[in-house]
Amino acid sequence: MTNTNHSTERQPTRGVSRRGLLLGAGGVVGGGLVGAAAGYSVASTAAPAAPGDLQQPVDVSPGVANTQVTVSHPYGTDTIAFYGPRQAGVDTPQQAHAIYIGLNLKDDTDADRLSSMMRLLTDDAARLTQGRGALADLDEELAAAPARLTVTFGFGSEVFDRTRPELKPAWLKPLPTYGIDQLDPAYTGGDVVIQIQGDDPLSVAHARRMLLKDARAFATVAWVQSGFTHARASRPDNTTMRNLFGQIDGTGNPEPGSERAERIIWGVGQGDGGGTKNLQPWIDNGTSMVIRRIAMNVDEWDELDRPAQEGVVGRTLGSGAPLTGEHEHDAPDFEALGPSGFPVISDISHIRRARSDDPDEAMFRRSFNYDEQPAASGDTLHGQTGVSQSGLIFVAFQCDVEQQYTPIQDRLAETDHLNLWTIPIGSAVFAVPPGCQPDGYIGEALFA
Amino acid sequence: MTNTNHSTERQPTRGVSRRGLLLGAGGVVGGGLVGAAAGYSVASTAAPAAPGDLQQPVDVSPGVANTQVTVSHPYGTDTIAFYGPRQAGVDTPQQAHAIYIGLNLKDDTDADRLSSMMRLLTDDAARLTQGRGALADLDEELAAAPARLTVTFGFGSEVFDRTRPELKPAWLKPLPTYGIDQLDPAYTGGDVVIQIQGDDPLSVAHARRMLLKDARAFATVAWVQSGFTHARASRPDNTTMRNLFGQIDGTGNPEPGSERAERIIWGVGQGDGGGTKNLQPWIDNGTSMVIRRIAMNVDEWDELDRPAQEGVVGRTLGSGAPLTGEHEHDAPDFEALGPSGFPVISDISHIRRARSDDPDEAMFRRSFNYDEQPAASGDTLHGQTGVSQSGLIFVAFQCDVEQQYTPIQDRLAETDHLNLWTIPIGSAVFAVPPGCQPDGYIGEALFA
Repeated sequence: MTNTNHSTERQPTRGVSRRGLLLGAGGVVGGGLVGAAAGYSVASTAAPAAPGDLQQPVDVSPGVANTQVTVSHPYGTDTIAFYGPRQAGVDTPQQAHAIYIGLNLKDDTDADRLSSMMRLLTDDAARLTQGRGALADLDEELAAAPARLTVTFGFGSEVFDRTRPELKPAWLKPLPTYGIDQLDPAYTGGDVVIQIQGDDPLSVAHARRMLLKDARAFATVAWVQSGFTHARASRPDNTTMRNLFGQIDGTGNPEPGSERAERIIWGVGQGDGGGTKNLQPWIDNGTSMVIRRIAMNVDEWDELDRPAQEGVVGRTLGSGAPLTGEHEHDAPDFEALGPSGFPVISDISHIRRARSDDPDEAMFRRSFNYDEQPAASGDTLHGQTGVSQSGLIFVAFQCDVEQQYTPIQDRLAETDHLNLWTIPIGSAVFAVPPGCQPDGYIGEALFA
Repeated sequence: MTNTNHSTERQPTRGVSRRGLLLGAGGVVGGGLVGAAAGYSVASTAAPAAPGDLQQPVDVSPGVANTQVTVSHPYGTDTIAFYGPRQAGVDTPQQAHAIYIGLNLKDDTDADRLSSMMRLLTDDAARLTQGRGALADLDEELAAAPARLTVTFGFGSEVFDRTRPELKPAWLKPLPTYGIDQLDPAYTGGDVVIQIQGDDPLSVAHARRMLLKDARAFATVAWVQSGFTHARASRPDNTTMRNLFGQIDGTGNPEPGSERAERIIWGVGQGDGGGTKNLQPWIDNGTSMVIRRIAMNVDEWDELDRPAQEGVVGRTLGSGAPLTGEHEHDAPDFEALGPSGFPVISDISHIRRARSDDPDEAMFRRSFNYDEQPAASGDTLHGQTGVSQSGLIFVAFQCDVEQQYTPIQDRLAETDHLNLWTIPIGSAVFAVPPGCQPDGYIGEALFA
């Protein structure tokens, strides 16, 4: 088994010879040549013995500068470490598929039973993410190719009420009610969230089944949301995802592992007086997760011409560059004026309204597209007709929802040209507890 | 642009040096090192100019013996030819994602309008599969990475009734009613089917949207089914898919391009008196598609132990080998007896019941898993509870449904141990017309 831990510094993953990998691994699937951002280790496990499965020796790429995670192929046996001070799946390089499960606790799930549930689910997650079957998992072959599977748990208000209410973060409550919202209970709220992410839809589906199987004694399913971005290895690994409007989505994200990302996601440096506010992380190595389901009216969006679409967002569709720039990551120039004297980037464009002058008003986005079975012909569902039922599972991580997320959402809800083609139809807020060690379990601080 | 056409012979794709590809392509995404079964060409198009998209030069694998399609990475620009004597997507190497759309023709969609619809959809499919935007597609970036996208059309009985009834194949009608069926209109019937397959869920979703957008003037959506198998490049490319019971699924398939596959799928050699029956292909280079939606009760399946699960199917779960063999593709020995004198492979096992002594009773399977949002807690949906709503989109191609498919289905419906854990909830039969040339369109023979 090859297992490399890279530091959080960004550097090309050089220094591993292909020859060494091919010759040294002796029939093991080529892999392990994988660096990860933000301190997560990514490993490639040995191939299982089943013929026809993952046994074939293959070549691996030698690593490309400027790419955080290089590709091993077949990548099914790539794993992301489960145990650690922080939960994986937050600033881990984004996977291709995700399922979000909202659970409601049963009435008789008291602190003791909740603790049992979290021990059980933690054990399942620790096994499945490393390519092993869950306890009593008969179909272990479905677990053998985790493909960077991660499982991340978050807690709603009710979990704290049933355990240690004094630890409940002040921001752990529904977002303010916005005039643009048309929230559907089918995608709103929940006491516990399980975020399952991975590069293989089969492994993600299997993890969902195993986790729900063990959760059902303690909780009922409030909602399930499935999403995707582009398939792994279909684009270079650092390609920013596109949503179903064709827009590049997530450009402004801080670089995982950077000082800024550490501050925004995990609150590192906040509370030290180093920022404009004196934010207190609710708990070390924890964060918060906001999940918004945004229906996108692709039919009406299609009626805009391309310059109009780009004006609404403030970025070009091709490269994702701001209308005042050339490349995706160029800083937008909101002062620049066009030939007619109006700003090149409109004051009501999405990019302008989302931008804050306060550097602590920022989030880390990790969104997935959804594309469900359309409503029956003639019906309209969330503003969408029988052609599409598509949109975005918008997921944001930040240390403090009220200080970092809500001001941006307030501004966008008030004015954002994009609101004409989007409807928020689901909303949920969760506290993401720290990671755990092999002798512990996720959420253990609530049961101390 | 690199574009190679390989013959239908199976051979390792040697002889292309990595150095040549890396140095010769000058910034173009490495690719084109791709052979395909059954005469379809697979090509890799040049990267579009958008920064951050598909521009990064990368390494490619030199090809692995015994694998039909080698991997180019990123593979987003890989394409499968649309034009040709046969439609793609039937015996093309299986992609990772699929969407099936059943359409019902509107009352005023007469032969003329139907012809217009098929011209329009053919043009969309020809463009999208080659990485170009559909007509009036503003979000062409979503089309730029087709990742082996194919679009395949099939016609139900109604299409013939409105055009040339005399060409309607005798087998183009609903399957017999089986006692095991619990057919749901939401997954049954339909006048036209569009099968969209590809390795990238984003490209598949975009194609669905573009095709439905153009179809809606002529037809309404009867049903949509989305499925998946393991992600591309996560396993070696010739790995047989696993279903959500953990079983390897599709082992007995004839090898695309082989004499047997040509006969079974396309009727080549049938009608020449070379077989046990004198089957007539309904039309040269056409075939039939049966789509059955099979709900799988994974919860109750989980209650079986592993030997019991293997006994039900007649194959081991690990390798997929028959219980009398060692490897997936070993021929089962139905005569072999176990220590207690009973057959090693039970007479009511799935593998035994599915096997026919008539070599023309055979189909080409191309199935995908589905894993939908579970029913609300406490509810039961198609025998499934709030944990899973999972199963198989079972798709079979064969020249003649009645001669090749129905006898097997009859036998399985009568007795198949697996029936205890599966329920057919959808069923549809379509005629798949031949392919077309750039100056034609799919189905043109019906409008001649």
